[in-house]
Amino acid sequence: MTTRKTAPAATAARTGRSALRDEARRRDDRDPLSAHAARFATGGVVHLNGNSLGPPRESLVHALDRVVSGQWAPRQVRGWFRDGWLELPRTVGDKLAALLGAGPGQVVVAGETTSTTLFNALVAACRLRDDRPVLLAEAESFPTDLYIADSVARLLGRRLVVEPRGGFDAFLAEHGRQVAAAIAAPVDFRTGERREIGPTTALCHAAGAVSVWDLSHAAGVLPTELDAHGVDLAIGCGYKYLGGGPGAPAFLYVRSGLQPEVDFPLSGWHGHARPFDMAPRFVPAGGVDRARTGTPPLLSIVALDHALEPLVQTGIRALHRRSRSLGEFFLTCLGEGRPDLLRRLASPRDPDRRGGHLALRVPDADGLERALADSGVLVDARPPDLVRFAFAPLYVTYEQVWRAVNEVHRALP
Amino acid sequence: MTTRKTAPAATAARTGRSALRDEARRRDDRDPLSAHAARFATGGVVHLNGNSLGPPRESLVHALDRVVSGQWAPRQVRGWFRDGWLELPRTVGDKLAALLGAGPGQVVVAGETTSTTLFNALVAACRLRDDRPVLLAEAESFPTDLYIADSVARLLGRRLVVEPRGGFDAFLAEHGRQVAAAIAAPVDFRTGERREIGPTTALCHAAGAVSVWDLSHAAGVLPTELDAHGVDLAIGCGYKYLGGGPGAPAFLYVRSGLQPEVDFPLSGWHGHARPFDMAPRFVPAGGVDRARTGTPPLLSIVALDHALEPLVQTGIRALHRRSRSLGEFFLTCLGEGRPDLLRRLASPRDPDRRGGHLALRVPDADGLERALADSGVLVDARPPDLVRFAFAPLYVTYEQVWRAVNEVHRALP
Repeated sequence: MTTRKTAPAATAARTGRSALRDEARRRDDRDPLSAHAARFATGGVVHLNGNSLGPPRESLVHALDRVVSGQWAPRQVRGWFRDGWLELPRTVGDKLAALLGAGPGQVVVAGETTSTTLFNALVAACRLRDDRPVLLAEAESFPTDLYIADSVARLLGRRLVVEPRGGFDAFLAEHGRQVAAAIAAPVDFRTGERREIGPTTALCHAAGAVSVWDLSHAAGVLPTELDAHGVDLAIGCGYKYLGGGPGAPAFLYVRSGLQPEVDFPLSGWHGHARPFDMAPRFVPAGGVDRARTGTPPLLSIVALDHALEPLVQTGIRALHRRSRSLGEFFLTCLGEGRPDLLRRLASPRDPDRRGGHLALRVPDADGLERALADSGVLVDARPPDLVRFAFAPLYVTYEQVWRAVNEVHRALP
Repeated sequence: MTTRKTAPAATAARTGRSALRDEARRRDDRDPLSAHAARFATGGVVHLNGNSLGPPRESLVHALDRVVSGQWAPRQVRGWFRDGWLELPRTVGDKLAALLGAGPGQVVVAGETTSTTLFNALVAACRLRDDRPVLLAEAESFPTDLYIADSVARLLGRRLVVEPRGGFDAFLAEHGRQVAAAIAAPVDFRTGERREIGPTTALCHAAGAVSVWDLSHAAGVLPTELDAHGVDLAIGCGYKYLGGGPGAPAFLYVRSGLQPEVDFPLSGWHGHARPFDMAPRFVPAGGVDRARTGTPPLLSIVALDHALEPLVQTGIRALHRRSRSLGEFFLTCLGEGRPDLLRRLASPRDPDRRGGHLALRVPDADGLERALADSGVLVDARPPDLVRFAFAPLYVTYEQVWRAVNEVHRALP
């Protein structure tokens, strides 16, 4: 009975779905960016977890070999001077700057983890406002940001105020004169919901507070326009959409106008004005180099550099446009014959209000992640009930999105 | 006239030198550790700068490929759980522990630079003695240690006291009750002169101060016996004798008895008791894991892990014995027909009082480094007048030492 009654609807859905597969193929044929996917070592798997860790480029091992066998082995320590290793934190930083909407000389990849880089930024930010008691953070922050903000507040004798999304801007507006620095993220790591960098930065500045941004979930997929918005300091990880690989080093942006006065606690010798003088006293480098710390981990920075190449060539506007289009196509496919699934969307429906990923609310997030993984589709669960789907622009194709949704339909009957 | 008079002496020196070359070959034949050198990508160059950056093992690129193509590409983010990535900071730490004279569960490679790791250790050390005003450091420290100690003292409102070699122990003996923490190195980075870890640690403890050691110039070449000496905290870099490559991540040792109370400022989520709970408040992990920070840079840690393999297999006593013997052989060759050169020794003549390197005082250190490099011998100048020769146990042979001295004789006629 049931079968007979739903048969026409099921047929219609099947027809609709196969039409969408044709549409996916047409889109891939039309968009030259779809050709990039074949240059990543995806192993035939669909990667919708670029918000966490994407696949390596096929050429990465060759790039590492070039440095190990072509530079390090023959030239050893002279590689620091002859092969540009010493400048790599800056040259990679400048490539990142292009993706972040920043002019050159403002971004550095010192070689630390993201948490530690945020620590360095937050101490420096608070020091710029020594007379203000509050460090302000968002309740929705990735937890490590809260751990680090708490640590910085304790060290400097400030008060950490953690406000939920709405309360954050309200606190700035009402008590902004108490705020030394405010740390926020332009993309909610759970739902993908955007916080506009411009208005919040303007609120910070109106209150005389230092604005710090964690761009981990935005870099490489969303235009952030740091210079245009007058952002003071920003950090972000090198994995996720930037593709630098497991635990890739973080980056740190320091607005050029701030560079002469900013005072970082991680004052390692690579941040010294003349590191090779081996002077007993620290004199910070003049520009963004003062954000450097110790001797940077070359291999991990080389991998990040290699990952940035196609992203920088493509440009952040085209990357964003494609990610957004892939996300919209996902929702189109998701709703085809299954309007119930669209009601599971935990992210804003308006693509202007989302970053590179979206989330569905499901009864068993881990179960869905596992079921999809078994079908060759990698997504990322946030237990108990969120599953995130990320649309990295260069290794995800429309046809893969179609295929992924097909598996979601199967897994959530 | 001059020629005729010196001819017999010159002939004798030549005979002596060629006898030493035979002796070098005999020693290489006798010592199975000499076979290791062929497994490093030395490019036919003699590497006497292992105190700075040695050559990679030939198999490194293969090891990186295994992780990139065999783990990351097929398993992506699941590699953290299925391929042991998440535990790597601890498993590599335990290998290091064996080289450092420490039991397991006390060393971690969090993935930060050496300077930053020292920062983490020094803040934690001072916090263990909140009522004491002084942070004590050696004047002979590698400069970045002084920069970081100064930064920590400023942050915590302590007074940095920098004492030269002799004054350091005297300060501990006389004013030790004022000292929260004392940071020293067992090997002077310029001259290779040793400071015994045991007596200075005992002085620290007698005064109730926390002992912190920078093992950068000792790890992998000198037994440090951290457990036996009751050292509290120690850090060191992963390059130099450990061979982890350019800017390899640092390690951090935390004495097990101290672990429940030590309070690190770089409280990133990988140091959390339950990192994947994503809880809003930081709860430090129970053991040495609390010294972890953010997501660690996998590729650089994998390279360090790979470098440790033959060192751990050989064991620190055999590594030290061979390094010491290579150094003594260097001095024997150096003095052969040229007693004047032995008077240039800036290091203790007694090998028990030296680390893995020794230094000669010469009029133009940079010039000698360049001349030797042109002859295929890599050494390390400390301008204006010091040139350092390091005897890494596994990629330096006796015959290479002989060859290097031959070039020194030529370059310093």
